[in-house]
Amino acid sequence: MSETHRPTVGVIGGGQLARMTHQAAIALDVELRFLAEDEADPAPAVSRWTDLGSPLSQGDLERFVDTVDVVTFDHEVVDLDALTRLEAAGARLFPRPDTLRLVADKAGMRAHLAEAGFPVPPWSIVRSPADLADGVAAIAGPVVVKVSHGGYDGRGVFVVDDPADVDDIAAPMLARGTTLVLEPFLQLDAELAVLVARRPSGDLVVYDPVTTIQVEGMCREVVAPAEVDATIVAEARRLGAAIAESVDAVGILAVELFWADDRLTVNELAARPHNTGHHTIDAAVTSQFENHLRAVLDLPLGDPTLRSPASMVNVVGPLDGSDPRDRLARGLGVDAGARVHLYGKASRPGRKLGHVTVCDEHVAVARRRAQAVATALGTEVDW
Amino acid sequence: MSETHRPTVGVIGGGQLARMTHQAAIALDVELRFLAEDEADPAPAVSRWTDLGSPLSQGDLERFVDTVDVVTFDHEVVDLDALTRLEAAGARLFPRPDTLRLVADKAGMRAHLAEAGFPVPPWSIVRSPADLADGVAAIAGPVVVKVSHGGYDGRGVFVVDDPADVDDIAAPMLARGTTLVLEPFLQLDAELAVLVARRPSGDLVVYDPVTTIQVEGMCREVVAPAEVDATIVAEARRLGAAIAESVDAVGILAVELFWADDRLTVNELAARPHNTGHHTIDAAVTSQFENHLRAVLDLPLGDPTLRSPASMVNVVGPLDGSDPRDRLARGLGVDAGARVHLYGKASRPGRKLGHVTVCDEHVAVARRRAQAVATALGTEVDW
Repeated sequence: MSETHRPTVGVIGGGQLARMTHQAAIALDVELRFLAEDEADPAPAVSRWTDLGSPLSQGDLERFVDTVDVVTFDHEVVDLDALTRLEAAGARLFPRPDTLRLVADKAGMRAHLAEAGFPVPPWSIVRSPADLADGVAAIAGPVVVKVSHGGYDGRGVFVVDDPADVDDIAAPMLARGTTLVLEPFLQLDAELAVLVARRPSGDLVVYDPVTTIQVEGMCREVVAPAEVDATIVAEARRLGAAIAESVDAVGILAVELFWADDRLTVNELAARPHNTGHHTIDAAVTSQFENHLRAVLDLPLGDPTLRSPASMVNVVGPLDGSDPRDRLARGLGVDAGARVHLYGKASRPGRKLGHVTVCDEHVAVARRRAQAVATALGTEVDW
Repeated sequence: MSETHRPTVGVIGGGQLARMTHQAAIALDVELRFLAEDEADPAPAVSRWTDLGSPLSQGDLERFVDTVDVVTFDHEVVDLDALTRLEAAGARLFPRPDTLRLVADKAGMRAHLAEAGFPVPPWSIVRSPADLADGVAAIAGPVVVKVSHGGYDGRGVFVVDDPADVDDIAAPMLARGTTLVLEPFLQLDAELAVLVARRPSGDLVVYDPVTTIQVEGMCREVVAPAEVDATIVAEARRLGAAIAESVDAVGILAVELFWADDRLTVNELAARPHNTGHHTIDAAVTSQFENHLRAVLDLPLGDPTLRSPASMVNVVGPLDGSDPRDRLARGLGVDAGARVHLYGKASRPGRKLGHVTVCDEHVAVARRRAQAVATALGTEVDW
């Protein structure tokens, strides 16, 4: 027999997504290696192989890519041009740099989706004061200003009630050369998300769509399955699969959707495991993290079916600076059936530090229970 | 606020139990450190902190115990006298050395259980040729000879059909000073196991009893819940809890039971996470590994309830020496709903290399599915 080769997957970044992917990798005996800037980051802190370096350094990327079979990503802040060259030279990078480039650019992503015929909210790209004036003039009521690159957890997204104030926020960013996306502020009936896992060959599975609760642009709770009509769920699933094909996603693609005026529109994409899929660790047959690994390694995908209704509530750093880890006994004591996941991050107000999932046949009970545990861990639950 | 202290648990040994405990520790942000002899062992291979050393070296144990808050165990081959001294000096060791000493000694364990009034199979302790002659004379039919210390997976257990042959096997061991336990070979109706998680304070939870399928003394399949009458299940649960108290277990205690002649008797104990609880990762609300950690850290215990009927089939090294990891794609492709767990061990015939769990509302279906995946991974399923 030939020597057994354990598949080795490199992950750019060492945050909580990398950490939870490592838990899944252990079961499949897939070796994960991280390119991270600090060995105390969430994933390096609990694993053996970390290459200290920067995802923005071409040299660090080149060295790292050479040590693994496949490269995937914990975040999108990477040197995309370097990745494109590495892919051209034969490296296996999933999702592909072209997909990452599309998803990392809100303006380009919107344009791509609209051209491909997918429903998107009204939007305009703003690169100049003239664009800004035109964009604002076209919107009645509050305006949403988004930076095209690099925002997350509500950072880089500004809701401006009075259109007259848009200039104050937007002009300095335009002056720095930042491209913006302008949208009307929509009164939503719900926000949904649907996750797809897709292999290089095109095989894919679609997770059950979820409802998400966002506060100031940050995901705070995920309710599975989505509390909307079956026809909307079916349409969300259809959109998820079609968009994964359209952007040639490999691995997990998260599609965030608006439900307003009896219509689904596509808000955001993320080409990696996503906060709206954390419940799948405990509530689905196969977690998003395991299916991400299986997809990037071109292994048969796992069943994404939800085993039970569930709620996932993020554990967020309290305003008083206290650390949820100091309340672990209290949190576990509140509910013996809750699943607590902590990411090994120092507490800072508003920072995502973990999550709590509760599976319960009654989704309202799951929500109340998960919120109670998050509260006991110090998270302000105010929605 | 005072500095946040992440609990640090030391594990003596770095095998698959330590590896699966690490997966659970990541979620609770508990830092696990291993005292292991090889950094390629299953747990060190996937984690950050390993102290290379021997569990039989007093110096290595002393050094290791000093670096962690609590010490627990992946196996029982340890220097118990050194541990007793460390406990007397203030170290927190769970399970306690007294419990380990009792469980590691089959003769002493049987004597303890019998004295405490628990039902045990007929047995005698053999330390001399005279003991042997007396013991064999008291048994009609086949005889089981067990070494009192150190056997596992059927090693150290001998079934002798003709009592006249017992001497050939037993005499050389007695000559080496090995203590033996002699039992009649029982025609069993079933083998059961029940797991208990117990805190230092005495709080405990009892897992749903399971049926186990043993081939030549090695656990090959676990069926949950146990396929026996409810009264037997209730009695198994009662025995599990009472024995955990009787041996002052902390962490997981596995109690293996014989069901024969309308009667449960206690066969073996193990004071650590156990093969008969591996299905709990996927099939119970809280896995045995997480509850072991919660117990040794004196944290509130998690709900042990079974979420679904399930079968767990061990992946065992094939006779041809091939490696199940080379068949991973095939194994995953057989059943999208199966949960595959590989331990990162090199393949050797008969060696436990992983397990497959399938949850299904019909236990017969779960069994067939899990067996099919194990077969695809190269395991001979012949029971």
